[in-house]
Amino acid sequence: MTYCVGMVLERGLVLMSDTRTNSGVDNISTFRKMFHWQVPGERVIAVMCAGNLATTQAVISQLEERTKEPDERDNSLIRGRTMFNVATEIGRLLRSTIEDAQRSNGEAGKGRFTASMILAGQIKGMQPRLFMIYPEGNFIEASWDTPFFQIGETKYGRPIILRGYERDMRFEDAVKLLMVSFDSTIKANLSVGLPLDLLVIGKDEFAPLHQYRVTGDDAFFETISSSWGAALRSALDALPSYSFDSPGGSERDRDVD
Amino acid sequence: MTYCVGMVLERGLVLMSDTRTNSGVDNISTFRKMFHWQVPGERVIAVMCAGNLATTQAVISQLEERTKEPDERDNSLIRGRTMFNVATEIGRLLRSTIEDAQRSNGEAGKGRFTASMILAGQIKGMQPRLFMIYPEGNFIEASWDTPFFQIGETKYGRPIILRGYERDMRFEDAVKLLMVSFDSTIKANLSVGLPLDLLVIGKDEFAPLHQYRVTGDDAFFETISSSWGAALRSALDALPSYSFDSPGGSERDRDVD
Repeated sequence: MTYCVGMVLERGLVLMSDTRTNSGVDNISTFRKMFHWQVPGERVIAVMCAGNLATTQAVISQLEERTKEPDERDNSLIRGRTMFNVATEIGRLLRSTIEDAQRSNGEAGKGRFTASMILAGQIKGMQPRLFMIYPEGNFIEASWDTPFFQIGETKYGRPIILRGYERDMRFEDAVKLLMVSFDSTIKANLSVGLPLDLLVIGKDEFAPLHQYRVTGDDAFFETISSSWGAALRSALDALPSYSFDSPGGSERDRDVD
Repeated sequence: MTYCVGMVLERGLVLMSDTRTNSGVDNISTFRKMFHWQVPGERVIAVMCAGNLATTQAVISQLEERTKEPDERDNSLIRGRTMFNVATEIGRLLRSTIEDAQRSNGEAGKGRFTASMILAGQIKGMQPRLFMIYPEGNFIEASWDTPFFQIGETKYGRPIILRGYERDMRFEDAVKLLMVSFDSTIKANLSVGLPLDLLVIGKDEFAPLHQYRVTGDDAFFETISSSWGAALRSALDALPSYSFDSPGGSERDRDVD
């Protein structure tokens, strides 16, 4: 499995991904799932991947190869005029990679080799944008109504983001929120694991503002992980108490107001 | 979908279940998924169900029917000497109900009609016990290492229970913890919904200590739901801040200790 989150803030974009890949529980490896490319001062584009590793590596390698042949016409990462163009091109590449693998495996290939991606970035003259690209090659774009996308093992870490996200939050607070979301997921699912990759893209900077890898011995992540249990218990304590005598809380309700 | 949690505490057992059933998103109904039977002073036994509604209703109806014919020999709910016997009998009933439905539907029935159950209760002279019963009819029992079971849509609400559970907690605090877990799940998944059924079984009481239905206009649940966002944000604020300058947190680490 995998866990990746991309988030739009007023200040820019924040992305985090884990690095664990597994084929069964007895075959675990570490692979980077976050990639970015930039044309300094003009664009920065990042992609995160979930799903079949051979599929996503094939897509990333093709994107990577194209940036090394800058004269090639369909180099959308570098030449695409808008993030929409980039998303369209990556979607096409993703779908055709999956289709090729499925076709060459006949009946056994059906429903396998799928993958999905989160695309984030900004091109000069336009806003920072965030997309989720499906295995079928189509995609959706984030908005202030739905300002973050998750792929992979999304459920454990979702409630805290739903509650903690604010569009005007500081980058540092968004990173902390994502770390808590990843910590909750890692604690619940063996198939998501450290190290984590972090990328912060400031609006109108057209270059990564901050990138970092959270490894297994990261003192800050360890502090977040160990403090969060106590912080949650304090938060629970701070809620009004349930009472067997007035469970609907008509009296307590007045106390709380 | 469904969400049910059963929890063992030193003081006894706490169970909570939602009531939403759906066949697609456009066919939603409310059905009770928690049932209990008692022989006052001697035993109290509760069952929660997830999965195919026709299957679980068939199992519950058969259990129910048997309690109305108290002379029948295989009335394990009333006559089973241990909770293990009760679990074995319910498991057998669940598996045969699923098998019957699958058999009579031939090829189309394969892999359908499955369900799982949580069984909780206490019989005089023995400890309170909690089981998870699989569609195959086998089951596992909770222990202090794994003191709670979830069935249905388990992931959204799991991290908070992992963090908040303590075996010596008060019943009232356990109920609050479960309400937060259910609220997180309801916020993330349309297929889990109010009303919620709550059952508290005190150790050595052999009767429900407390039962309650949380309906859509429940003032206490509403307060928990609306306060939890603020409580979580305070908890996040209380964690040390991430810093772009020393992301690994070597300095902050000292501050926190």
